Amino acid sequence: MNYRFSETIDSFKSSAVREILKLTQGRSIISLAGGLPNEQYFPLDAVRDAFARVFEQGNSVLQYGLTEGFTPLRESISKHLARKGIHAGIDNMLLTTGSQQAIDLLTKIYVDPGDVILVEKPTYLAAIQVFQSHKARLVSVDCDTDGMNPEDLERKIKLHQPKFVYVIPTFANPTGKAWSIERRQHTLDICKRNNVLILEDDPYGELRFGKGEPLPSIFSLGGEADGNPVIYTSTFSKIVAPALRTGWVVGDKEVIRHMARAKQAADLHSSTMDQQAIHQIFESFDIYGHIDLIRTQYEIRMHQMIDLLKAQNWEGVKWVEPKGGMFIWVEMPQHIDTAELMKFAVEEGVAFVPGVSFYADEPQTNSMRLNFTHTDYEEMKTAFERLNRAIEKLQSVAVQP
Amino acid sequence: MNYRFSETIDSFKSSAVREILKLTQGRSIISLAGGLPNEQYFPLDAVRDAFARVFEQGNSVLQYGLTEGFTPLRESISKHLARKGIHAGIDNMLLTTGSQQAIDLLTKIYVDPGDVILVEKPTYLAAIQVFQSHKARLVSVDCDTDGMNPEDLERKIKLHQPKFVYVIPTFANPTGKAWSIERRQHTLDICKRNNVLILEDDPYGELRFGKGEPLPSIFSLGGEADGNPVIYTSTFSKIVAPALRTGWVVGDKEVIRHMARAKQAADLHSSTMDQQAIHQIFESFDIYGHIDLIRTQYEIRMHQMIDLLKAQNWEGVKWVEPKGGMFIWVEMPQHIDTAELMKFAVEEGVAFVPGVSFYADEPQTNSMRLNFTHTDYEEMKTAFERLNRAIEKLQSVAVQP
Repeated sequence: MNYRFSETIDSFKSSAVREILKLTQGRSIISLAGGLPNEQYFPLDAVRDAFARVFEQGNSVLQYGLTEGFTPLRESISKHLARKGIHAGIDNMLLTTGSQQAIDLLTKIYVDPGDVILVEKPTYLAAIQVFQSHKARLVSVDCDTDGMNPEDLERKIKLHQPKFVYVIPTFANPTGKAWSIERRQHTLDICKRNNVLILEDDPYGELRFGKGEPLPSIFSLGGEADGNPVIYTSTFSKIVAPALRTGWVVGDKEVIRHMARAKQAADLHSSTMDQQAIHQIFESFDIYGHIDLIRTQYEIRMHQMIDLLKAQNWEGVKWVEPKGGMFIWVEMPQHIDTAELMKFAVEEGVAFVPGVSFYADEPQTNSMRLNFTHTDYEEMKTAFERLNRAIEKLQSVAVQP
Repeated sequence: MNYRFSETIDSFKSSAVREILKLTQGRSIISLAGGLPNEQYFPLDAVRDAFARVFEQGNSVLQYGLTEGFTPLRESISKHLARKGIHAGIDNMLLTTGSQQAIDLLTKIYVDPGDVILVEKPTYLAAIQVFQSHKARLVSVDCDTDGMNPEDLERKIKLHQPKFVYVIPTFANPTGKAWSIERRQHTLDICKRNNVLILEDDPYGELRFGKGEPLPSIFSLGGEADGNPVIYTSTFSKIVAPALRTGWVVGDKEVIRHMARAKQAADLHSSTMDQQAIHQIFESFDIYGHIDLIRTQYEIRMHQMIDLLKAQNWEGVKWVEPKGGMFIWVEMPQHIDTAELMKFAVEEGVAFVPGVSFYADEPQTNSMRLNFTHTDYEEMKTAFERLNRAIEKLQSVAVQP
């Protein structure tokens, strides 16, 4: 049989992280590469109890559900979002198989091949994959520690007439960065003025460190859901557990209705088993107390990693201490190609994600993303010893004739 | 905000069944429209126990999983399929959010806009939706009670050079038909000779009535998974429960690998919570005894509906008694437009799916799909009384000047 694949097939690239994980299989490697939450803080008892309460309701809990998602969970999420200044009713919401699916569905209904999507520089690698799978053309907007550069954003909007701007303004993947309120407002104003949609991806927003006030989402600055220039997506993967694969997306009714139709064709609906369980978690578990626990623990780990970074004496290394999330973005000196470094790192038994994977265009080759949530302090220390040896190896090879 | 949707958006049509269900909301309507399994036979205790056993394994069950799906479940399915003469290892298999997602992913990696897909006349309406969402051109192949007409299939293959042929050869949706072995072999031979892939959709294969031998899948006639001209998909929705949204697709390694990459972009992976639970069901529950129970009960209901059909004295009505599955396909006399009939039926408090929804082209307007699995005998009787009144109303309107 000679299989005759579609032209699209080349646009489904396997992710760099996935390829890295293949390298590490069956070997004793400490991975700072994944974006995995720490298993220790999964609320196993609460999830078990939630499922038990679902089953108490009888056989009908096992039937097909609505494409839009289990209605009582949409109501719970609506209340949850109202606490964050996001006002979206159940008709403004679609439940998805993680927020990844929300990104895919919006791209499907909004982007034709060749259409431009503006992204942060750098940005979430699996979003790059989705956009490319729909044959979008990606253009990066210059960024600093406060967010997207407004002048560059407006210039690129005028130049490329993009369909939407994809942003992770709160504790971004990969940079850990939190945009300033001014920059959020600016981005909203520019996009509104130019009739460009914003896709705000917020998987990490709850993982805020310190005691300050939470930052407003761009969506909440955009007003009511209907007519809002922002589509907002988030997930339970980081605050409850990834195995439940439940995310949500909110926005204008018309946009959500089109996304629901695209979802109907794609998979009819996501697991209603998981959706019903998560609804029970909202009903009977102190989810906000649990989020506080995760935030506190992740902050401790973040500081441990920052301390280790400081202790390394790596010449010319830079990073910005994250205010939340799961990652530290480390910039090595210009001459260190982190994709090259990675090969030695895997030999030494440590993995990270080379920064190059996070660029839609004009990649920076000297950065790397380190995850601090999944390893404990002892492992982290060993990881840094190994990273040190990898850097030494790389440099000794570099000076060879 | 002026939302600027993609061109594709018009191809995401809401399904006829869905629109019908909207009509029925909040009213006391007996629905023979849905394709819902009977809740009474959901193995609630087994599912509850399965989840409990998953939770006993500790926190790690809540972590992210592989795109390909939970490996032990793939192994269980591999063994399950071997009983049916389908030989596919775990690398030949991808777990999906229901078999609907398998159809979507294969279309994504195999079909470019304008490519032709050949389908049965009539065929599964949600498959039509998926194919249209990828801008495929659909061409129906003539069918009789034994399956696709081989001459028409070969003629249309030569004429249209299709990318694949989509079939539901075993207890089809909507016709309830089971293809003969000869016709299965014929279709395979023709497609193999012409290098055309077959997508065999088999959600109902286990729901076989009577005591005869099961029919071989076209996949099993095609030999080993690698190099097989058939991609085979099925689901746990009909034999365990739909809420778990777990399906699978098997085929050549290369095809599966491309589908996995497309899935990675679409949603990373499906619920591993549900996948782990289904694995436990294979481990500790008599799933084959359970399937026997469902088969027996559905066969009783099928006969009840056939008896009711016989009792109606509808002039010129025709049907073929299904050998399995969930549906009876009823052909009314030529002058009865079942889409028109449906409006009166809903007024009278009964719903079905008008046959026109199941045609990719050249629709037949006088057929309807009746589901016999979800209603009990008393409801069925009332449904037929209501249907009778609807037919009378339709005919009295038709004879008005």
